[in-house]
Amino acid sequence: MITVGILGGGQLARMMVLAGAPLGLRFVVFDPAADACAGQVAPLQVGGFDDTEALAAFAAKVDVVTFDFENVPAASAHWLAERKPVFPNPAALAVAQDRLSEKTLFQELGIALPAFADIRSHEELAAKVAEFGMPCILKTRRLGYDGKGQFRIRTDADIAAAWQALGAQVEKTGLILEGFVAFDREVSVVAVRGRDGEFRAWPLTTNWHVDGVLSASLAPAVLSAEQQATAIAYAQRVAERLDYVGVFALELFCRGEALLANEMAPRVHNSGHWTSDGAETSQFENHLRAVLGLPLGDTRVLGHACMLNWLGQMPDSKPVLAESAGHWHDYGKQARDGRKVGHANLRDDSALALAAALQRVGEALGRQAQVAPVVETLRGSVTPN
Amino acid sequence: MITVGILGGGQLARMMVLAGAPLGLRFVVFDPAADACAGQVAPLQVGGFDDTEALAAFAAKVDVVTFDFENVPAASAHWLAERKPVFPNPAALAVAQDRLSEKTLFQELGIALPAFADIRSHEELAAKVAEFGMPCILKTRRLGYDGKGQFRIRTDADIAAAWQALGAQVEKTGLILEGFVAFDREVSVVAVRGRDGEFRAWPLTTNWHVDGVLSASLAPAVLSAEQQATAIAYAQRVAERLDYVGVFALELFCRGEALLANEMAPRVHNSGHWTSDGAETSQFENHLRAVLGLPLGDTRVLGHACMLNWLGQMPDSKPVLAESAGHWHDYGKQARDGRKVGHANLRDDSALALAAALQRVGEALGRQAQVAPVVETLRGSVTPN
Repeated sequence: MITVGILGGGQLARMMVLAGAPLGLRFVVFDPAADACAGQVAPLQVGGFDDTEALAAFAAKVDVVTFDFENVPAASAHWLAERKPVFPNPAALAVAQDRLSEKTLFQELGIALPAFADIRSHEELAAKVAEFGMPCILKTRRLGYDGKGQFRIRTDADIAAAWQALGAQVEKTGLILEGFVAFDREVSVVAVRGRDGEFRAWPLTTNWHVDGVLSASLAPAVLSAEQQATAIAYAQRVAERLDYVGVFALELFCRGEALLANEMAPRVHNSGHWTSDGAETSQFENHLRAVLGLPLGDTRVLGHACMLNWLGQMPDSKPVLAESAGHWHDYGKQARDGRKVGHANLRDDSALALAAALQRVGEALGRQAQVAPVVETLRGSVTPN
Repeated sequence: MITVGILGGGQLARMMVLAGAPLGLRFVVFDPAADACAGQVAPLQVGGFDDTEALAAFAAKVDVVTFDFENVPAASAHWLAERKPVFPNPAALAVAQDRLSEKTLFQELGIALPAFADIRSHEELAAKVAEFGMPCILKTRRLGYDGKGQFRIRTDADIAAAWQALGAQVEKTGLILEGFVAFDREVSVVAVRGRDGEFRAWPLTTNWHVDGVLSASLAPAVLSAEQQATAIAYAQRVAERLDYVGVFALELFCRGEALLANEMAPRVHNSGHWTSDGAETSQFENHLRAVLGLPLGDTRVLGHACMLNWLGQMPDSKPVLAESAGHWHDYGKQARDGRKVGHANLRDDSALALAAALQRVGEALGRQAQVAPVVETLRGSVTPN
């Protein structure tokens, strides 16, 4: 009997536990919050990510460690790795935690990406804004996610405002300036690499964000075969360089035929949630297979699959469940403004049938704006007779 | 937040919990054994099924009650039904618990079935054996399952031996004699009925038993459209008469074009385990949707799906996981002779590809005999060019 320890006890840990139980796995999740939602389905060890005593108690209960949360302090990951196998390895996690290390790595690997610069002063910021042109975005190097810790610079006045907002972070998390990409769309590669180096990617996913938070995903993304191959090769290059084990996501911007890497997430990813109901093997199961050294499962998509994120509070499940291939994922969380509380997956062999189902769901739930870009993309992907 | 109570904490409860968590459900399972395997994924209330104090504690924690175990005493089911909604209703459970009531109901509903008779004495047994002809089978009316509590009568001498073995059960569980059916194959209808009366059936499943215990299932069963319609109509007739809510299985014998009902199981069923990976909606999820009054999910099969039962101890998972659509279900149980400890599901769009995968798995695990009838059926189902 193998017990997997998961650092972080949110919805990602919860879905890993549900996917891993049929593999005969036991779990212990570690989270600072006593009401972490994965604690509903697995024993929970409560503690801060830097609390060595709690980490020791956790380590004593588990055979292998993985992550639901990418911002576990590198020191804690290293401390655990001296005691138990940790996948992905702490060095890979450290690179992905730091936008500057990550982008520097992309550059070294010949991966196209937007302009970026390490920013250490107001003066450097002003100089680099002049170089990159506006708009551009000042971000913390570490600890930002879902649009947090970011400031978009559109005018000269914004430079001072951005520095005012984030300048104090220079010493704490570091700052990075990124050139803005007027992208046509955002896509992600969700991929998995095994302990033996085997690499598999799910078909590319198109993603729509609202206020920096994922709103909807659609797979497979409609891209040229060349673009798909390029994106997947980028992901493989990163995984191999980092000796990465497990699932990760690489987010990219598309502008015409160009693909520019945005960032990687060293864990199962929101843009891969559709795989639970729309792929032969889910990202959650394949992450665990990778971590345990088991054969990786088939990553093919079954038809067309869409994920709709639910933020704040769960809507009525009935309109989704009434659809032929409508599936529901409630994370068991308390409602809270802007919080990711669940998602729906819808799947169909036919793009047009999936579009029609999404349209009905959007209307029934008053979420027409959320489904609209997905419906449009699905309809646009079908060649008229 | 809704908490579902499950009477019985075995693998069926475990798989219901795993299927129900994404619906935002919480669970409490009730079982006499402190190590019941569903207790690994949900809080477990330990108690005997006739322990009113433990049942009261259980009832206080749950909003609705259902079953993983069909032989919960009728009195306990009724006692609970006075306190909480119980699905399926205790009267339906009582009918399914008693082979005589069940077969009498089938007869009343015009469902074809083998000869049967209530047996109260050695003399009655001898007389009915003479009437039905040999072989025939003496069974306890209640509490038998997986070939337990049965005696096959092949010779005159077996009559006394059968009475010797089971005669003492006349007062305790009752006895029933069943005519033997020289069937070509065994099939089952796994179906679900909602609180609003909506009825759906998965495609029929072919089943192979070894020593009275399910060994393998294959869906869809190759039957004429008429046979399929008849079997599903039988299931619907039973469900409507019993005002049944939830998933159940109706097992039937096929002899040429004839279909004879064998028995029903008032719960999710081993012959429906393939639905977890081979149907749009699993039997576990649809059972919960029915019990909660939610819309029922699509029951279509995705290609061809096979289930292989693992008894005694789990084999190596790797040969199954290495197959494109191989999925693993380990119940987290201690190994024990003859115990159902897990199963594998394999699926493919092509019957021949599934046959090839099964052949490989059978060889890798030394289980050629288990996969052989399934492989043969799949190959025989494909019309040669």
